[in-house]
Amino acid sequence: MPAIPTPTPDTQQAIRRRNLARVLRTVAAQGPLSRAAVAGRIGLTRAGVAPLVEELLRAGLLVETGRAAPSGRGRPGSELAVSAHGPAGLGAEIGVDHLAVCAVDLRGRVRARVAADAANRQSEPGPVLRRLSALLAEVIARIGAEGLRPAGLAVAVPGLVARGSTTVVHAPNLGWRAADLAPGLVSVAAPGHILDGLPLTVENEANLGALAELRLGGDGAELPGPPPDFVHVSAEVGIGAAVVVDGRLLRGARGFAGELGHVPVYPDGRRCECGGRGCLELYAGEQAVLRAGGITPEGAAAHPGPGARAALLARRAADGDAATVRALGEAGTALGIALAGAVNLLDPQAVVLGGALAELAPWVLPSLERELALRTAVAADPSRGGGPRVAVSRLGADGPLLGAAHAALQAVLDDPLDFRAPAHSPRG
Amino acid sequence: MPAIPTPTPDTQQAIRRRNLARVLRTVAAQGPLSRAAVAGRIGLTRAGVAPLVEELLRAGLLVETGRAAPSGRGRPGSELAVSAHGPAGLGAEIGVDHLAVCAVDLRGRVRARVAADAANRQSEPGPVLRRLSALLAEVIARIGAEGLRPAGLAVAVPGLVARGSTTVVHAPNLGWRAADLAPGLVSVAAPGHILDGLPLTVENEANLGALAELRLGGDGAELPGPPPDFVHVSAEVGIGAAVVVDGRLLRGARGFAGELGHVPVYPDGRRCECGGRGCLELYAGEQAVLRAGGITPEGAAAHPGPGARAALLARRAADGDAATVRALGEAGTALGIALAGAVNLLDPQAVVLGGALAELAPWVLPSLERELALRTAVAADPSRGGGPRVAVSRLGADGPLLGAAHAALQAVLDDPLDFRAPAHSPRG
Ligand SMILES: [Zn+2]
Ligand SMILES: [Zn+2]
Repeated sequence: MPAIPTPTPDTQQAIRRRNLARVLRTVAAQGPLSRAAVAGRIGLTRAGVAPLVEELLRAGLLVETGRAAPSGRGRPGSELAVSAHGPAGLGAEIGVDHLAVCAVDLRGRVRARVAADAANRQSEPGPVLRRLSALLAEVIARIGAEGLRPAGLAVAVPGLVARGSTTVVHAPNLGWRAADLAPGLVSVAAPGHILDGLPLTVENEANLGALAELRLGGDGAELPGPPPDFVHVSAEVGIGAAVVVDGRLLRGARGFAGELGHVPVYPDGRRCECGGRGCLELYAGEQAVLRAGGITPEGAAAHPGPGARAALLARRAADGDAATVRALGEAGTALGIALAGAVNLLDPQAVVLGGALAELAPWVLPSLERELALRTAVAADPSRGGGPRVAVSRLGADGPLLGAAHAALQAVLDDPLDFRAPAHSPRG
Repeated sequence: MPAIPTPTPDTQQAIRRRNLARVLRTVAAQGPLSRAAVAGRIGLTRAGVAPLVEELLRAGLLVETGRAAPSGRGRPGSELAVSAHGPAGLGAEIGVDHLAVCAVDLRGRVRARVAADAANRQSEPGPVLRRLSALLAEVIARIGAEGLRPAGLAVAVPGLVARGSTTVVHAPNLGWRAADLAPGLVSVAAPGHILDGLPLTVENEANLGALAELRLGGDGAELPGPPPDFVHVSAEVGIGAAVVVDGRLLRGARGFAGELGHVPVYPDGRRCECGGRGCLELYAGEQAVLRAGGITPEGAAAHPGPGARAALLARRAADGDAATVRALGEAGTALGIALAGAVNLLDPQAVVLGGALAELAPWVLPSLERELALRTAVAADPSRGGGPRVAVSRLGADGPLLGAAHAALQAVLDDPLDFRAPAHSPRG
């Protein structure tokens, strides 16, 4: 007997919720639109769309622009747009040496952003989360003053997060193991606290960087839209990757997918902290490149803060420092070998370099692309000149933070009626 | 403006087609069932299910068993089962040294199977496809005599197939490049030919092996059901893999995903035919293992046919031949390194060894598991003892052929009304 998965039902209520989401997403992606245009784009009648629109207007998710819809037929009506004063997605980032929080509205605009340097390496979660809560309170107060309410919070962390949980299983550079972030963010939260009842997501930073790429990426020319199948590689202190397939993140069975940093590149090479040998991070991680570039730990420590060491490397390479140029070239070779494995396995449309790699691309790309082309020839598409396209992200270091804010908003777009006003309005 | 995908509509017709598929799949997976039980399992009313059942009975996809349904309420009715005389999925396999065809009915039973040795290495597609057509005609005649009609044909090939096409882009061991198999299978087909109008799918053999694993795999104890996330590795002449995520094949942008054989393992190693260096196939492919095991090309040629060389290696290893045992151990090491990369990247629930690897598992597994555990520790789940589970397929060399037949039947399960009687009934 074949094991055929048993389907779930299409209840009337499920269809209605899905149609609400369709209306909201269509206006978010293509608005302002008339009711008739919305109906046409989602394949419903105008009569079918009308009550859905009313419900979304009542929930404060859609607004009438006041501008008359161009169509002359039927009852004249104003065009519809998503609200600039409705829900906001809160994104937060816990970096090894910084914290950041931002808020994005349904129109995709960043409405508030705060950041602070921090010394989070080998830290305890408690104090870090208390500082983060203070930044969150500041952002919530600012957007509250503009009539926006938080719809959810997503936190980007440089580590493995158990799928569907708020627990950081292992973040080597923070020194965190089995740390559930929910109590730390909500313990400061007695009932009535700003974060009380807010949906909370914790996610690997590379995954959120890829999500940002998917939503906001594309460079107009080479990347007319975000490609639905790509591997996103980002390097900050560690190296992470995210795999996007058919426009969706591939998370893995436990949520640990994308550990490109520990893919074996030179299997008989040096021992890695992870227990393996010759992992990519030993050749292309920040510490490895700084060391190979002749920068001492003390020299590196003189450049704290997000992106500071990448900027230092870029400056030295631009100045023609031979050791730095060679170190970045060797990092590109190692990246190319690891990515060749990924490309042979996944056949993505593109490889996108984000984070610090975007800034260092001029020195990393040549050797990376050489290895990749050499080692993916069996699957090379002659019509494309062989090998997959390698693109450089325009979002740079802000990717994970923006991706977090968009992820927090996604729940509203997926199920608009789940967006409820918080029990208490923000104070401060 | 965020790039939010615009949704497609839920028309009444689309819902009805989906519900027909749900009824058919539910009965296929769990039948025989009463109408009330079907309704309950898919969340529809009995009145909603009745016309769907009637339509599937008329189409010959469902039958009444004649046994009264146990429920005493309402109009008594016979239980429903999928037909053993309805559509059959035809699976075909083009191997380097064999051809095979089988037919599977909706109940998942193999109703006919024929195979033949063949010398397809560096062949021309034309003669190979003519031989295959003869085998197909034989199987179609046999199942026709039992009242089954072919619903579709899927062909497994050891090479890259362009996604959604019938074109083999590159099958190195057959020597085929840019070969569209449709004309060759249908050119023998004037209108009225047995294959005329039959939906044709061409697919990489490793993908179909994984599909078979998904449908038929599991060993009852360790694998209670098919895991929805796994990497399936099979070795015949070459090494292929398939990635299954959430129960679905990951095909890649062009359909070329799963090229594990050309993942770099020792990046400074020997040059590979693909243009790369140190690819997995150079250490764990059939030729490499035979050579390292001290078996000459002439000695290998004395063992033609599917599985014959794997059987030779297994026999020598079981007899304690040191060179063979060492060669298989080194193949396991190389497989473990390549799979460590895959596991770090994809975080699957399991790695499944199929094809010849299943038979050689006793000698390949120890070194494979050692490398995998060593190199995936960062993502190891302590509750599972670290590292992903490695399972050995019970389907062995028959996986791709069975997977092909099930794939050919899948279209009927997905959209039952697409199954139409052929213009001409089979003859012979
Ligand atoms: Zn490592
Ligand atoms: Zn190769």
